[in-house]
Amino acid sequence: MPESPYPMLSVEEALQVILQAVSPLPPVRMPLPALLGLVLAEDVICQEDIPAFRASAMDGYAVIAGDGPALSVLGEQTAGAAAMPALRPGTAVRIMTGAPLPEGADAVAPVEIAEEHGGQVRLLRPVRRGENVRPVGQDMARGDLAVPVGTVLGPAEIGLMATLGQPEVLVYRRPRLAVMATGDELVSPENPLRPGQIRDSNSFALLAAAQAAGADTVNLSRLPDDEAKLRAALLDGLNRADALVTSGGVSMGRKDLIKPLLAELGEILFGRVAVRPGKPFTFALVQGKPVFGLPGFPVSSLVSFELFVRPALRRMAGHPKLRRPEVKARLSHAIHHPDDRTEFQRAHAVQKDGVFWAETTGLQASSRLKSLVGANALLRLPAGRPDFAAGDEVTAILINQPEVD
Amino acid sequence: MPESPYPMLSVEEALQVILQAVSPLPPVRMPLPALLGLVLAEDVICQEDIPAFRASAMDGYAVIAGDGPALSVLGEQTAGAAAMPALRPGTAVRIMTGAPLPEGADAVAPVEIAEEHGGQVRLLRPVRRGENVRPVGQDMARGDLAVPVGTVLGPAEIGLMATLGQPEVLVYRRPRLAVMATGDELVSPENPLRPGQIRDSNSFALLAAAQAAGADTVNLSRLPDDEAKLRAALLDGLNRADALVTSGGVSMGRKDLIKPLLAELGEILFGRVAVRPGKPFTFALVQGKPVFGLPGFPVSSLVSFELFVRPALRRMAGHPKLRRPEVKARLSHAIHHPDDRTEFQRAHAVQKDGVFWAETTGLQASSRLKSLVGANALLRLPAGRPDFAAGDEVTAILINQPEVD
Repeated sequence: MPESPYPMLSVEEALQVILQAVSPLPPVRMPLPALLGLVLAEDVICQEDIPAFRASAMDGYAVIAGDGPALSVLGEQTAGAAAMPALRPGTAVRIMTGAPLPEGADAVAPVEIAEEHGGQVRLLRPVRRGENVRPVGQDMARGDLAVPVGTVLGPAEIGLMATLGQPEVLVYRRPRLAVMATGDELVSPENPLRPGQIRDSNSFALLAAAQAAGADTVNLSRLPDDEAKLRAALLDGLNRADALVTSGGVSMGRKDLIKPLLAELGEILFGRVAVRPGKPFTFALVQGKPVFGLPGFPVSSLVSFELFVRPALRRMAGHPKLRRPEVKARLSHAIHHPDDRTEFQRAHAVQKDGVFWAETTGLQASSRLKSLVGANALLRLPAGRPDFAAGDEVTAILINQPEVD
Repeated sequence: MPESPYPMLSVEEALQVILQAVSPLPPVRMPLPALLGLVLAEDVICQEDIPAFRASAMDGYAVIAGDGPALSVLGEQTAGAAAMPALRPGTAVRIMTGAPLPEGADAVAPVEIAEEHGGQVRLLRPVRRGENVRPVGQDMARGDLAVPVGTVLGPAEIGLMATLGQPEVLVYRRPRLAVMATGDELVSPENPLRPGQIRDSNSFALLAAAQAAGADTVNLSRLPDDEAKLRAALLDGLNRADALVTSGGVSMGRKDLIKPLLAELGEILFGRVAVRPGKPFTFALVQGKPVFGLPGFPVSSLVSFELFVRPALRRMAGHPKLRRPEVKARLSHAIHHPDDRTEFQRAHAVQKDGVFWAETTGLQASSRLKSLVGANALLRLPAGRPDFAAGDEVTAILINQPEVD
């Protein structure tokens, strides 16, 4: 059988090729309830002073500072009502949190220091000018930058845009990723296995990984190793999505049809990476859209997704940070590492007294999905540096929040 | 005006009352594509050996170890097909990754060390017994615990359950939270403001916070300070959801209708907490369902949600971990802290050389939602310990992944 015609790229070279080939999707206007986790594509500027009126910060009595101790109560000022007529010396207005101060008032005596009887209120201490008053523009002033472009929108940012009267803002939309698993050996999870068959796990795992990365998904399910069917599904997927991942069919076997098909339909930018797991990982552009050919072994497929597809999806979504956080971690045991390629071993990392300790998740076979169950880190073991001893320091990519012990 | 009749609980006491009052929702069977982020409510046990047959780990030739160097090629074994007839000494079968080994074969010579011409293959080196063969049960054996109860399901766990032939598993379902904002002063974000009005931000922010906490939501939108309307909306919300949050209306003013209504419809478990922001935070059970009465100021409402509602939602969802990670952080500047209550200041924390440094987000007014924009930590400043100097160490609750510098 022939050698692969594709040059072998390093992990970093491969990632750079991908990131140069994908761009943020065109921004769209979206309404507030749809914004969680999206990235802002414009600066949101405050158009008004907030608060727009002098507002009470407490329940109590609007007064003139230093006035009292006994004051006539003119009435009640509730939130949501226009401000009452002006206050004169010797008078007070009962006021609710958030309500506008009547003209003339310049302080609020909180309810805890006030006693009201028969239309008169008695203050137990004098109040200072400005006490419990939120001045106009205290929270934000007209012209202030409220939320900068590139912000990942969470509850506070969404609330702030509501406050500012922005029911819609310009954001990068979620990329839509089409996902397919390929292979004659694959059957659906509810099926019993005939000899030689395995159940499709990749399409389910990759759809979940895409959702976890913030993408919408198109499920192309399982496809046999049939060139016509694969071609039709690829074109259909690209028609319905911004990007596509396949799994399986990227090795050198006679039934590995994905690489030839991608070369026919578009351009393969690389077809091999010096990485374990994931060597045959392939990246192509078809109709200008990125296509990621993942290896078929379940671990290879998910680790390749993590290393190469997730950063691309985040770039498409306009995220300022494409990569996971990386930390230095000490190994709690020795690790065998064949040093011909960079290897990513699955591990569980725990932070103890400020130091990360990593333990791998048992047998690191590419088929053994169990090696990713409970893993919160990928340990990057570089090429050219064989085996590690307990206590050695390695780079850990945190794919889930680590525990602090 | 009267003093609040409710005793003042500490933050920890309040959280304990809530966590004792809520339980995980009854488990339900859910299909694989709906499982991301849900918590497993049963042990998933492997019912078969995986792989179920001796499988090739590479593209190459199935051979008898030590045989060769020249062998007759009997045919091709692809993945998904039943195993071919038994191999005899002097013969080989072309084999694809994942395909079953023919009987008699006990090793796979990878394609890189094999040269095939005219029905004969020549091995460039002898292969060892078991080389590139995945034995039966290598990944998992029948009876193994595949995924333990209490696991938060991610892509790998979902894929593993597909592999195991479990198209559905028992999980805790997502809690459904009904959200309403109350106050005569509230208008919708697209509206201009008349005097005394502000725009509703809390319903949008709280819906997003609930989604970010993994809950489904029922949007009850804005309600005026009208007892009949509030009662109807509360009952409607509880009818459609597992829990309910209100914002506003929990202070001591005449228009603060939420506490009396909750006392009428159910039981108030507490009505005050020694916390800043969030003192009037109220927790009740109505028809056996938790109701969280959040204060109306936007920051008070979101911080109370973070401290009290999120842990409750996670308990309802069966999460093993209810709280955010906490770390020690050094202050990069002095902080004024009135020590009558525990205070949670909003901050941005960065990890430098293993040490967290925290900087607060400017003016910490309860109305100033901007103080939560870009915040990734809440600094817990205890009661009875006033003011902090630059360099002092405080506890930081990490509400977003901090950067590593």
